[in-house]
Amino acid sequence: MQGQQTIGIVGGGQLGRMLTLAAHTLGFKVIVVDPGDNCPARQVGAQQIQAQLNDKSALRKLSRLADFITIEIEHVDSSLLERTFKNGTPVNPAPSSIQLIQDKYIQKQYLQENDFSVAPFQAVNTFEQAETAFELFDESMLLKTRRNAFDGRGNAHVKTHKQLESAWRRFNGAGLYAEKTVNFSKELAVMVAKDFEGNIKTYPVVETIHQRSICIETQAPAQVSETTRDLAAIIATQAVKTLEGAGMFGVELFLLTGGSIVINEIAPRVHNSGHYTMNACATSQFEQHIRAITGLPLGETHLITPSAVMINILGERNAATEVSGMEKALRQPDTFVHLYGKSPTKVDRKMGHINANGVTIKTARKKAVKARQAMSI
Amino acid sequence: MQGQQTIGIVGGGQLGRMLTLAAHTLGFKVIVVDPGDNCPARQVGAQQIQAQLNDKSALRKLSRLADFITIEIEHVDSSLLERTFKNGTPVNPAPSSIQLIQDKYIQKQYLQENDFSVAPFQAVNTFEQAETAFELFDESMLLKTRRNAFDGRGNAHVKTHKQLESAWRRFNGAGLYAEKTVNFSKELAVMVAKDFEGNIKTYPVVETIHQRSICIETQAPAQVSETTRDLAAIIATQAVKTLEGAGMFGVELFLLTGGSIVINEIAPRVHNSGHYTMNACATSQFEQHIRAITGLPLGETHLITPSAVMINILGERNAATEVSGMEKALRQPDTFVHLYGKSPTKVDRKMGHINANGVTIKTARKKAVKARQAMSI
Repeated sequence: MQGQQTIGIVGGGQLGRMLTLAAHTLGFKVIVVDPGDNCPARQVGAQQIQAQLNDKSALRKLSRLADFITIEIEHVDSSLLERTFKNGTPVNPAPSSIQLIQDKYIQKQYLQENDFSVAPFQAVNTFEQAETAFELFDESMLLKTRRNAFDGRGNAHVKTHKQLESAWRRFNGAGLYAEKTVNFSKELAVMVAKDFEGNIKTYPVVETIHQRSICIETQAPAQVSETTRDLAAIIATQAVKTLEGAGMFGVELFLLTGGSIVINEIAPRVHNSGHYTMNACATSQFEQHIRAITGLPLGETHLITPSAVMINILGERNAATEVSGMEKALRQPDTFVHLYGKSPTKVDRKMGHINANGVTIKTARKKAVKARQAMSI
Repeated sequence: MQGQQTIGIVGGGQLGRMLTLAAHTLGFKVIVVDPGDNCPARQVGAQQIQAQLNDKSALRKLSRLADFITIEIEHVDSSLLERTFKNGTPVNPAPSSIQLIQDKYIQKQYLQENDFSVAPFQAVNTFEQAETAFELFDESMLLKTRRNAFDGRGNAHVKTHKQLESAWRRFNGAGLYAEKTVNFSKELAVMVAKDFEGNIKTYPVVETIHQRSICIETQAPAQVSETTRDLAAIIATQAVKTLEGAGMFGVELFLLTGGSIVINEIAPRVHNSGHYTMNACATSQFEQHIRAITGLPLGETHLITPSAVMINILGERNAATEVSGMEKALRQPDTFVHLYGKSPTKVDRKMGHINANGVTIKTARKKAVKARQAMSI
């Protein structure tokens, strides 16, 4: 028996906002910790504790007020999460999984130790080690920060010694590692849900398309062979099985030109590559995550449309947010616009996304592209 | 060009709540007028002006703050709405439609004048008129209040002179009318959406099942002949075409034992018989209403599952709300629970609903019934 239960989310951005909407549908209250003024989750009715994500007293307060705790971002102090939440409030995914994932070097090590294929990588603590890696990786690699990297921030493509020097200076002694550039034909992603009992439900394999290292588009299902799709789903499912805790996990994969698949990285949370599920799958990734972290059974994950395309609405300028063109965008049939209530607009800031369904990827994509072109933000 | 626009809703109950969730997805802010403490819409992030629905200053405030105005209940002072909103804020549906519909006697007259079939009815202003109607209608009729009736409140079945006397005493001089009891084989309902330009999209015809005059279940699509389905859809569409203003309209119909169809009544708003659309149609009735009243194009209305059943979660007792059994309920595949955050629980109060999808109505219904049985509220 219960009165109204409360979900605590560390982070109140667009993912926290869409989690909040899903939680409300299921009758939960939501509290988020977020440093922003009137953060996206708060705008849709989450109570906000306005504080940095690692603020000890804010997390203690969250722990007191919430029946279940989760995150919308993995760049949090996982040991603090672990210490703060030893009072018995369920934290999902497990802080141990967050800790493992938030350091990309440790994540890669972990995946390798568990027999998952990843691109060759090396720890880089000194410039000499960076040079050694550069040679080892045939003078084509990524220099990456181990922590706090997302949407391309913290990644540098290195193909010349000069680029190596400049990247080294740019990261200025941050914990780094190097990763060999792999030749991939497509980037794939799989959203995987895990419940309290370890049951797993896997969403369709999608293709993700990036520009400037930001996800700009996903296509579901990925236009690859059935064998590739099956292989991608198996790898993603197996990888998530090894991780502790419940919730959604986003598994990013590279389909190499030779046909094999390596894991790029795993996000221990709802993920941009799963936004299409809101209008294209039986259960959205957001409802699924809420079910998973509150001990409810997982919902069905099948597509309810033959094809679905998601296009991100990235900010076009740096200014107060002004949305226009919604009425033109929504003239596309089977097309849905999701806005995050963010202001100001910044160049490349994720302001919303468009989901379009269709009989084929081509028709769905046409609608999504037209809808995006009709809008200005 | 626009910043974040605001939708004002008169009423903040469960319909206002689900409208708020849909409005947030599209990036709108929401303000509701509602007399309740922490009303269901407020719990999910609507700003609440706590006042009676007909409070003039509250409506004036709503009109100042909102870019678009709508209602979740038709029992409002429509002339006040009309006067209050003459400042140019779009009110949808049109106050004239609300006015027409909120008086069931006038609604019936209107439908009849526009050549729609309705059950025979008579105005009743005196007890003598009630007796005359009783005779005229072969001693089997409903005595109904013209206004403020919903979920069976305001209806009395009259089959004996004693019942007539008791109903007359019960309604105590309220504006009444009498309606001949019709022999129907099924109750049907059709949700119809209309946009600013008069474009119409019609949802699948559903069967509604009532107990104690409360809708307890809907089945989509209605298990009737294709001819009946087409006829129901045409009648509903034509009826809504005659009404002014944009938004969702719920058209309730009787399928008579002879096979003909009469209109029971029309709701100028989202409707309980459309809750199945949240998980079973391309666009939910709530998103559709928000699109319609804000001048956005209408979304697709087709079923995304062969069959869908909705079962209301009615309160089982009078007490503080305690929900249990969600984890068991959601073990049913393709089953979704929506809770409204209401407290206290009251007997027959609408506390939430369950949507279940399936290959047939029978399989969908089985899941919905099992899920409902698993829950206690």
